[in-house]
Amino acid sequence: MDDNNLDEFKKEFDKHLIKFFEEIEMEESLKEALSYSVRSGGKRLRPWFIYNFGKEVRVSDEELIKVGIAIEILHSSSLIHDDLPALDNAHYRRGVLTNHIRFGEHKAILAGDYGFILPLKIVMELNNLKIENKMVLTKYFIEDTLKMFEGEMKDLIFEKEDIEVEIEDILDMYAKKTGAIFGLSFSAPFFMVGENLLGERMHEIGIDFGIAFQIFDDLKDRLKSQEELGKDTRKDINKKTLLNKLNFKEVKIVADNYYEKVIKDLNQKSYSAVVKKLLGIRNILESR
Amino acid sequence: MDDNNLDEFKKEFDKHLIKFFEEIEMEESLKEALSYSVRSGGKRLRPWFIYNFGKEVRVSDEELIKVGIAIEILHSSSLIHDDLPALDNAHYRRGVLTNHIRFGEHKAILAGDYGFILPLKIVMELNNLKIENKMVLTKYFIEDTLKMFEGEMKDLIFEKEDIEVEIEDILDMYAKKTGAIFGLSFSAPFFMVGENLLGERMHEIGIDFGIAFQIFDDLKDRLKSQEELGKDTRKDINKKTLLNKLNFKEVKIVADNYYEKVIKDLNQKSYSAVVKKLLGIRNILESR
Repeated sequence: MDDNNLDEFKKEFDKHLIKFFEEIEMEESLKEALSYSVRSGGKRLRPWFIYNFGKEVRVSDEELIKVGIAIEILHSSSLIHDDLPALDNAHYRRGVLTNHIRFGEHKAILAGDYGFILPLKIVMELNNLKIENKMVLTKYFIEDTLKMFEGEMKDLIFEKEDIEVEIEDILDMYAKKTGAIFGLSFSAPFFMVGENLLGERMHEIGIDFGIAFQIFDDLKDRLKSQEELGKDTRKDINKKTLLNKLNFKEVKIVADNYYEKVIKDLNQKSYSAVVKKLLGIRNILESR
Repeated sequence: MDDNNLDEFKKEFDKHLIKFFEEIEMEESLKEALSYSVRSGGKRLRPWFIYNFGKEVRVSDEELIKVGIAIEILHSSSLIHDDLPALDNAHYRRGVLTNHIRFGEHKAILAGDYGFILPLKIVMELNNLKIENKMVLTKYFIEDTLKMFEGEMKDLIFEKEDIEVEIEDILDMYAKKTGAIFGLSFSAPFFMVGENLLGERMHEIGIDFGIAFQIFDDLKDRLKSQEELGKDTRKDINKKTLLNKLNFKEVKIVADNYYEKVIKDLNQKSYSAVVKKLLGIRNILESR
């Protein structure tokens, strides 16, 4: 597989994703609803990290793609529930109708439920992993999924309940809501080969990347219109972001600092090939 | 622990459940919402099966209670999502307000999400299990949770979409929606000690029990008023149950047959102590 850039990776990855849903045995309505959201767009950034770091420790393409599919299903499922009327109440996502608008709320809730558990089934069925390594990977999938829910809950409480939040509270919320799954994506390949200490360190770096990613996202939401982003930006108007505490320029500096820290940490680990690619997609992160 | 009858078991089990939620570290709003539903009532029938079968293969009380807590959290989480406005739209459950009425829909959705994954964390943290056995138990937790979602989806589709369903479709839906988690409860202790073949057989017997259990539930819903059951029975009015295909007496016979089959199969496996207890709670099943 050509891994030189994100677009080419996405094209190749999406073929595997389509094949995955063609082949999997599951109840048809759940498959239709879940695959709709997993397949509709997305940059495949999380699987891209898994693939690139996985190549550094020589995991096979096949296994890396499977774990990539697992993480993309997990991510998409969180978006399905985030978009529900009781949460962000979004009608569009990635330029298409959100899951509950397209299939009805009951199917969106159950498709999300299914999509939180399915990734764990995929991980359990990886055949070429040592049982100890599979166990550690499963443990991180479980714990990062729980952290993501905690981050989402914090996000909703900050938004809906009129409580005073500090910069640290917001960064902690970002670390959980967005960081946990990037932490998982950065570290999964290392756990797959039993490099657990390195995996833990990569997990931390991934969380920092997730925080930068989330702040770039906030900055774009502030700048761009609904049309350009393909989602309902105005729905986030009561969300607590760093922009409630700092001005645009200051927030940009915070994001840059997290991003630079990630680059520095990865260089220290000698993952210069990945750093080069990461620098190459910086414009995508800031304007997606 | 005295395991002679369900009420005494429940009293003891609930002490452990309260302690579990006191000690667990999780985001406070999620803990409040999830523990509310897990703690509010319930006969603790699923943990009771785990405990009783677990004693047959000499698993420690401590481990059985942990797995029991995991299964009860899983079960309660499915009820939290089932009760949501887009699904069964129930306002009362077990005589108290449903989760979303009490805490708001956004918290109920996230508490349920969290409660589907938390059981897996509990299983992963069982210390006295061989890694191979833990892996098998985790696999069954994952697969039965997915089956439960499939059953719930079928149930909703049967109810909301005007399609013709046969008796077999309804029984298949019951096997998934209710049977899967009883299958898990009957078999978990055997997987914990590596008795996998016996575990698979017990899993099948548990599914049959779940079908009987679900049919008894339908019959009671038909007979009793909301006041007596502590939940909104009329909400189920469009549900497809066996009562759409057979008369009351015929349905009762189907339930009895499944129940008798379970008793016979358990007697064949020489679990006469459990059979005795199971016969002792028959009146509870039919009038809970």
